[in-house]
Amino acid sequence: MIAGKKLLVVSAHAADYVWRSAGTIAHYIKCGADVQIVCLSFGIRGESNDLWKKGGQTEESVKAIRKAETLKAAEILGVKNNIEFWDLEDYCMNLTPEIYDRMVLKIREIRPDIIITHDKFDILNPDHNHVSEMVYSCSIMSNSSGISAGNTKVTKQMKLFGFEPHQTEISNFKPGSYIDITDSYEQKLAAMQCFQAQNHLIKYYTDRAFLRGNHARRISGNPDIKYAECFANFFPIVGNELY
Amino acid sequence: MIAGKKLLVVSAHAADYVWRSAGTIAHYIKCGADVQIVCLSFGIRGESNDLWKKGGQTEESVKAIRKAETLKAAEILGVKNNIEFWDLEDYCMNLTPEIYDRMVLKIREIRPDIIITHDKFDILNPDHNHVSEMVYSCSIMSNSSGISAGNTKVTKQMKLFGFEPHQTEISNFKPGSYIDITDSYEQKLAAMQCFQAQNHLIKYYTDRAFLRGNHARRISGNPDIKYAECFANFFPIVGNELY
Amino acid sequence: MIAGKKLLVVSAHAADYVWRSAGTIAHYIKCGADVQIVCLSFGIRGESNDLWKKGGQTEESVKAIRKAETLKAAEILGVKNNIEFWDLEDYCMNLTPEIYDRMVLKIREIRPDIIITHDKFDILNPDHNHVSEMVYSCSIMSNSSGISAGNTKVTKQMKLFGFEPHQTEISNFKPGSYIDITDSYEQKLAAMQCFQAQNHLIKYYTDRAFLRGNHARRISGNPDIKYAECFANFFPIVGNELY
Amino acid sequence: MIAGKKLLVVSAHAADYVWRSAGTIAHYIKCGADVQIVCLSFGIRGESNDLWKKGGQTEESVKAIRKAETLKAAEILGVKNNIEFWDLEDYCMNLTPEIYDRMVLKIREIRPDIIITHDKFDILNPDHNHVSEMVYSCSIMSNSSGISAGNTKVTKQMKLFGFEPHQTEISNFKPGSYIDITDSYEQKLAAMQCFQAQNHLIKYYTDRAFLRGNHARRISGNPDIKYAECFANFFPIVGNELY
Amino acid sequence: MIAGKKLLVVSAHAADYVWRSAGTIAHYIKCGADVQIVCLSFGIRGESNDLWKKGGQTEESVKAIRKAETLKAAEILGVKNNIEFWDLEDYCMNLTPEIYDRMVLKIREIRPDIIITHDKFDILNPDHNHVSEMVYSCSIMSNSSGISAGNTKVTKQMKLFGFEPHQTEISNFKPGSYIDITDSYEQKLAAMQCFQAQNHLIKYYTDRAFLRGNHARRISGNPDIKYAECFANFFPIVGNELY
Amino acid sequence: MIAGKKLLVVSAHAADYVWRSAGTIAHYIKCGADVQIVCLSFGIRGESNDLWKKGGQTEESVKAIRKAETLKAAEILGVKNNIEFWDLEDYCMNLTPEIYDRMVLKIREIRPDIIITHDKFDILNPDHNHVSEMVYSCSIMSNSSGISAGNTKVTKQMKLFGFEPHQTEISNFKPGSYIDITDSYEQKLAAMQCFQAQNHLIKYYTDRAFLRGNHARRISGNPDIKYAECFANFFPIVGNELY
Repeated sequence: MIAGKKLLVVSAHAADYVWRSAGTIAHYIKCGADVQIVCLSFGIRGESNDLWKKGGQTEESVKAIRKAETLKAAEILGVKNNIEFWDLEDYCMNLTPEIYDRMVLKIREIRPDIIITHDKFDILNPDHNHVSEMVYSCSIMSNSSGISAGNTKVTKQMKLFGFEPHQTEISNFKPGSYIDITDSYEQKLAAMQCFQAQNHLIKYYTDRAFLRGNHARRISGNPDIKYAECFANFFPIVGNELY
Repeated sequence: MIAGKKLLVVSAHAADYVWRSAGTIAHYIKCGADVQIVCLSFGIRGESNDLWKKGGQTEESVKAIRKAETLKAAEILGVKNNIEFWDLEDYCMNLTPEIYDRMVLKIREIRPDIIITHDKFDILNPDHNHVSEMVYSCSIMSNSSGISAGNTKVTKQMKLFGFEPHQTEISNFKPGSYIDITDSYEQKLAAMQCFQAQNHLIKYYTDRAFLRGNHARRISGNPDIKYAECFANFFPIVGNELY
Repeated sequence: MIAGKKLLVVSAHAADYVWRSAGTIAHYIKCGADVQIVCLSFGIRGESNDLWKKGGQTEESVKAIRKAETLKAAEILGVKNNIEFWDLEDYCMNLTPEIYDRMVLKIREIRPDIIITHDKFDILNPDHNHVSEMVYSCSIMSNSSGISAGNTKVTKQMKLFGFEPHQTEISNFKPGSYIDITDSYEQKLAAMQCFQAQNHLIKYYTDRAFLRGNHARRISGNPDIKYAECFANFFPIVGNELY
Repeated sequence: MIAGKKLLVVSAHAADYVWRSAGTIAHYIKCGADVQIVCLSFGIRGESNDLWKKGGQTEESVKAIRKAETLKAAEILGVKNNIEFWDLEDYCMNLTPEIYDRMVLKIREIRPDIIITHDKFDILNPDHNHVSEMVYSCSIMSNSSGISAGNTKVTKQMKLFGFEPHQTEISNFKPGSYIDITDSYEQKLAAMQCFQAQNHLIKYYTDRAFLRGNHARRISGNPDIKYAECFANFFPIVGNELY
Repeated sequence: MIAGKKLLVVSAHAADYVWRSAGTIAHYIKCGADVQIVCLSFGIRGESNDLWKKGGQTEESVKAIRKAETLKAAEILGVKNNIEFWDLEDYCMNLTPEIYDRMVLKIREIRPDIIITHDKFDILNPDHNHVSEMVYSCSIMSNSSGISAGNTKVTKQMKLFGFEPHQTEISNFKPGSYIDITDSYEQKLAAMQCFQAQNHLIKYYTDRAFLRGNHARRISGNPDIKYAECFANFFPIVGNELY
Repeated sequence: MIAGKKLLVVSAHAADYVWRSAGTIAHYIKCGADVQIVCLSFGIRGESNDLWKKGGQTEESVKAIRKAETLKAAEILGVKNNIEFWDLEDYCMNLTPEIYDRMVLKIREIRPDIIITHDKFDILNPDHNHVSEMVYSCSIMSNSSGISAGNTKVTKQMKLFGFEPHQTEISNFKPGSYIDITDSYEQKLAAMQCFQAQNHLIKYYTDRAFLRGNHARRISGNPDIKYAECFANFFPIVGNELY
């Protein structure tokens, strides 16, 4: 049952959460979940090549464009009022103890049932690796009674899922969970089209949703799945049923 | 939703299904599932050491004892009328093409939503490895329209889960799914106590249920789980939700 | 230098070589290589679901359709006169010592510089696994002077590459070599369209060629690659240069 | 021959060395070894949940309780005079170059034949990972003549073993060495009972010793082993005999 | 303590045991162990290239040369009276149920403390893989009371170690145990020089002994090791001490 | 085609590039490539044991000897004018953001087609691990338009290869590419002989070149290869041909 669940999505750069989980986000919202997005950076150094190539840009102008794009995408997905920007420098992201503390605080504030962030290893993106390590560590710290982040209440262990990296096999990505996004696919498509700085990725992640849909259909025997997103499981599934 | 689900459990030897999945079986039955057990052998050669050591035994007498024990266990779990014995020779089990065909037929007859059997590798039990390979191959063959096993109707891909082997880490076992068996733990305990041929395993799997309960509680944050069973996932989870 | 090279492609079922290596085959022929295809089976049991579903089919009629389709594809790729059918039963393929001997003989006859076949593990296709094992073993046996297959001359170790399986990550597939198939992509597309028995795979492998093109472009820095095929390397690369 | 051997145990938090190696420590002392314990932190932030939950605690009061508990345990094991506390902050432990230097100095001072510390990866405890990395690096540095830590004499490579983490399979733990602790099990039990802050772990590690005893008995064929502890080997075994 | 230990070495082809374990065998004999060698084949098809290239050979003449060479080597190592030849056909070795039964019988007859045979995977030698699987399975079966091989007495689990394959890294070989063969190195050298059919391997395994000596020296800190042999551990070490 | 290619070699310590890639460097120069070496440190703390043991040394005197030795080696290889020393402290190397920036700048200045540096994991050398991570991250950053290192022009993704570590199997090293260094072997030998501080490594890497030559010959079927060097591939090969 998704209704009432709390989902926290931590994205290293402004668009990561869209390419890799927009369908799941829109589906969760549609089903009554609360979704919160944290964008750690705008990706202006490492993930705005198409903008810089146009020329005449400054860090500030690129940042403004990236922010506008991602807000537009967030609006389409229904999370415009639940997205925040920490505005860290990217490439390479320097995740200080202060950032760790801030993330523990954020986790305790949101109290998510589920966190989605970058998977443990992305061979083409060092920032993703650092963010994965940070979010995982903070999810552990958040459960510890001895850590008194502000006036916050300790959490119980939440679930953690990892985004599919760009080149999965050489990043040791193992699919753990496929989410059927057939009902939210159109929203994902519209959200992706907001990102002119990474235009080449739109067809890429469109095709990927189709391929993942094929995979999900084949291993589930469910013929109705057309599009899917795929995540790594940080932990085994625990429940009353074999899913 | 478990009610109405069909579960097929394929056990290499007479007691494997009890040590490794009795809690899950009893829980599924309690919740309204149909459960069918196939015991491929009585394990008289490889898994009846305690009986042979008593002396004065023949293959037939050991087989009779093993059959009585496992039927008693099945009764406790609620599957006495849904267990069948293929009476193959164990250690080493020779799985001929005819056995493969018979298993395809059985899968098509039962049409399970879920199959539980041995995981891919058990460093201390070659039979388990052969059975795992056979059941997995037959689950694929069962989906193929070109295979006309008797008058049977082709299936869709069902889910596959692997039993926890005796020594997990050196058998490359990766926990994929924990099932909370707190509500069926007493039945598992009673079922295990039927096996006098493998008496030393009773405390072993009792402690294991407690440890797996601890693991499940820790990673789920659910304080009510006392006992659990653990399975490997042959395939990623597919669904509408991140479990 | 491709000109003059000999390439042997061993395909478990009639269409495997097309989905997974048609672009490379056509590219090699275009560049002056000799390419030989061995189709071990027509895949009538395991890979002709769409035909069987039409009804009114017999094993012979399905075989005839599959053969016609694959010959049409071979013609498009330029290998119509270099394809042979061993007509083995599929699902599960039983690879007897006689088949091993025949394959050694074939390798000694062709004397390939390169063999392409199925990679070591395909989680959804047991036949692929058996064929991979067989071709690899025969490539080793073919180099041994003590094996006198007919009147044949012993070979030197040839290169071995593995097809990309359908679901790569859960089959432990590791990309080793990307081949730029931009110049032969149209032929691959046309060849794929011959297979009405597996119609659903045409868009699948079309999208895959685009995604693999993206991967190849990203890791090579070569902006001209549009489409690619990906293979596993059975052995490390040996040469005078770091490719 | 254990008599005269020097063993250094480095524990991230105050109780880690007890849960995971108390039996081995007591056994080594019984057999005449010199054992030295370094507790890097008291674990007051991350591993004192049961104390904090009681309420009315301060960092100092928790620290005092934890210190008293671990000293009592050390007394039971026979290492009360060979335990030192570095009192670092835990969760997340910040291991500065100064800590590295101090550890090199400590290793050169103790000159251990064997170091036991945390294994390379613990999916539920980032501190364990950092300590493992630090101790391993310092063991390498300690062997280098160019590093003049105080007035110390360079060491030769000592052996390194890793503690079993809480959830082994998902932490990629591979058992390398089982130590029979049947003769020191009662001491381990008594030592564990000192830790009221982590009361839930006492039964956990009691059962684990029993299960590890079963594993050790099965793979060694030695029927006298009742309880065991399990460690990862950082390096292969080197010797005059196959152990 | 080696004196009185029983060591069984199972070699797929006539010379495998020499290249990979001659130093360990000679060392064990020197220290008072009983060593028994089983050569499953003479390797006339797959491992006698240099002989066949000379021309004028028949299967029988090659077999005679190989037998003479390996007996000469066995004499040098001190196992001339403890070597037996099962004379199976190699490349590919067909290990029937009868061979399995014969191996169980042999294990029960010898009652070894330690078995050395091929490791689980050799990417360049399918025979090695089949033999590894067979010996491991038979070692398990030998422990089962229900298997009455002739009039034999059931065994307890013995230790298993795997030979280093020719190309280790691509065969997934993990060094588990290094044996210092400095005291038996000259014998190994002399034994290797008996094999004119595989002359190119003599320098290869001479250098390997030197490199493995370097590795062993580096990780043990023991400066006296000059030459070593390396084995994989099938099971973790069990004992009273951390070796 | 090597002529005109640009090769950047990044070496953690003064001699690493010689032991592990001198043959490839000399071969590349012979064939018309531009080769640039960056030595991050002189290895005076961690890799000059033989010098320190002589006594009477200071950091400065050891540094002077190491520099003279490596320059002599560089001269033999033909890179005397293309080697630079960053003079960082080793054991443990502290790679600050400033070092990262300097490396990005260096990559953009050289614009290499290929970078060779340390592979991802060396179990006996933490410095190698840090350098590997740094060079890989900088190679990614260098491609990003948003990173304006000085007045530099963004690069396209270059190829990355990893040095063979000292003990390969326990460092998870997987051979990806073998380079035939038969034509430059004498130069490698001469270059290695310059390093009196690590005298014991000369025979080690001489033998290794012979063994790697054997490996390369066996898997390529090319009988002319006598000596080889082996590298890990950071990325799959991309090209128009299966190498």
